[in-house]
Amino acid sequence: MITLKILGCGGGMPMINRFLSSTLIHYQGKKILLDCGEGTQVAMRNNKTGFKNIDIICITHLHGDHIFGLPGLLSTMGNSGRTLPVTIIGCIGIRDAVKGLLSTIAYLPFELIIIENPKNPLSITHSSHRLVVEEYSIVNEAEIILNILELDHSSSCMGFRFDIIRKAQFNPEKAIALNIPKQFWSTLQKGQTVSYDNKVYEPNMVLENKRKGLKISYITDTRPIEAISDFIKGSTLFICEGTYGDDADLKKAIKNKHMTFSEAAGLAKSGEVKELLLTHFSTAIENAEIYKSFADDVFENTVIAYDGFVKKLSYKH
Amino acid sequence: MITLKILGCGGGMPMINRFLSSTLIHYQGKKILLDCGEGTQVAMRNNKTGFKNIDIICITHLHGDHIFGLPGLLSTMGNSGRTLPVTIIGCIGIRDAVKGLLSTIAYLPFELIIIENPKNPLSITHSSHRLVVEEYSIVNEAEIILNILELDHSSSCMGFRFDIIRKAQFNPEKAIALNIPKQFWSTLQKGQTVSYDNKVYEPNMVLENKRKGLKISYITDTRPIEAISDFIKGSTLFICEGTYGDDADLKKAIKNKHMTFSEAAGLAKSGEVKELLLTHFSTAIENAEIYKSFADDVFENTVIAYDGFVKKLSYKH
Repeated sequence: MITLKILGCGGGMPMINRFLSSTLIHYQGKKILLDCGEGTQVAMRNNKTGFKNIDIICITHLHGDHIFGLPGLLSTMGNSGRTLPVTIIGCIGIRDAVKGLLSTIAYLPFELIIIENPKNPLSITHSSHRLVVEEYSIVNEAEIILNILELDHSSSCMGFRFDIIRKAQFNPEKAIALNIPKQFWSTLQKGQTVSYDNKVYEPNMVLENKRKGLKISYITDTRPIEAISDFIKGSTLFICEGTYGDDADLKKAIKNKHMTFSEAAGLAKSGEVKELLLTHFSTAIENAEIYKSFADDVFENTVIAYDGFVKKLSYKH
Repeated sequence: MITLKILGCGGGMPMINRFLSSTLIHYQGKKILLDCGEGTQVAMRNNKTGFKNIDIICITHLHGDHIFGLPGLLSTMGNSGRTLPVTIIGCIGIRDAVKGLLSTIAYLPFELIIIENPKNPLSITHSSHRLVVEEYSIVNEAEIILNILELDHSSSCMGFRFDIIRKAQFNPEKAIALNIPKQFWSTLQKGQTVSYDNKVYEPNMVLENKRKGLKISYITDTRPIEAISDFIKGSTLFICEGTYGDDADLKKAIKNKHMTFSEAAGLAKSGEVKELLLTHFSTAIENAEIYKSFADDVFENTVIAYDGFVKKLSYKH
């Protein structure tokens, strides 16, 4: 099961009653943070998420409302006893941005691994007590495949899709029938071949067909370009910016390279996602719920995010 | 009259119910901000202070809890229509720190004037619709003289003292008795000499002796070094860090280069200030009021700051 928490759902500037857009993915005892505007660490305190187990931070783009919280959060993670490396994944310029933002920090007690503008999917796996990010290859048994899409905003901006792989089920009856010694079962379950006593045991001898995992897409900030529909296709959850609620604000959305609720819902529909979660509301929106019908008219299964909103996603049997 | 607002009174990390230490001085329609940790712009929204008229930002030192709010605040000031230059005054390294923190900001609609580690007092005057900062000289008719003291913290750190000058009173009876034409009265009142019709009119012909102004001292973060007592001598208000409330935490205070309440009160006493305002409380302090007696035992006129605390200072007749 995956738990997602919306730490904040605001865009542009931090407000009194709304933190800036940021989402925390809880995955098997570890955390992946998506965007980190000013105040994200306070939102994390509010939600009692803890600071130590954040292994990966994905930054969509370098606008302040998505990145200015980074130096404070990393300092606080250091103060909270973090010593394991932290991986930051971001668009073109992320390396210089982090260098600049952290220039006054004399020392962090952990290594920062920065992956700038990756062109190919990345694999995420548990290793060395943390989530490790590497270039994805077929050989690589990724737990999560992180896919990236270039978006259409006023600065270079990346959309993310997390394909959470569900392990193939091990069939003990087949293993018994084939006389495979029990000591090799866990190795085969991990997808690795075993050679022993002139015999070769292949994973497909004991594993059932792969089961359907989960797809979480995160798209902010951007105009609703066509490529997004394919990218998010069939997502279990599609987290998308809805900077403007009312269709009447379409001109502003076009000018500022953002989306209206109904445009986001249009992507949800063409992308055939299970559920749309709207976030990143303009500072002019006090209560986003009142604009919900603009999305509902296009895509029925829409939820309006709020700070502290929690979503649990389970595998379907 | 001067109004001061404590925007936040926390030290170390931003907390849910306490903003980081920051003070806003309202002076004749303009504002001077002292320190800017993560969330200071939100504290300003909380206090409805507005963002446009902040002419000067003084940064004591480069630790995150005093500076990480700067990129966000400056962005928001730009979004709020600021076009007049903003002066930032800070310790050694402030120029590089600002450059780094602002490296992702493509454009600010105002000029930043940075004064790094000034060695001599500065003068602050109204000019060109803003408060202008220059090196202080006797000739210069400063409205405020800003004095700076090197403190004793774990990084280079500056204490500030604002000497707010009260203009000498104009005596119209003297001017009438000396037959000084009315058209020159305002020039003389400004302290400038007038030559007209072979006559020379000096300001001291019509101005009474200078009246006592106000002294506001701002000392954080530091150990209580001796030089502070002289620096703050006779202050109307002495804003001082009290990171630790209990005397039992003296060892921590020494180790982390901070002060206890009683140490700050000791400075208030030896500096013969009118009033001590304690701020910059450790994250371990939930309610600073319960430690007040540690200060009171040393210096009677102590006030414990809280977020949103307002102090109005008037000239004494």
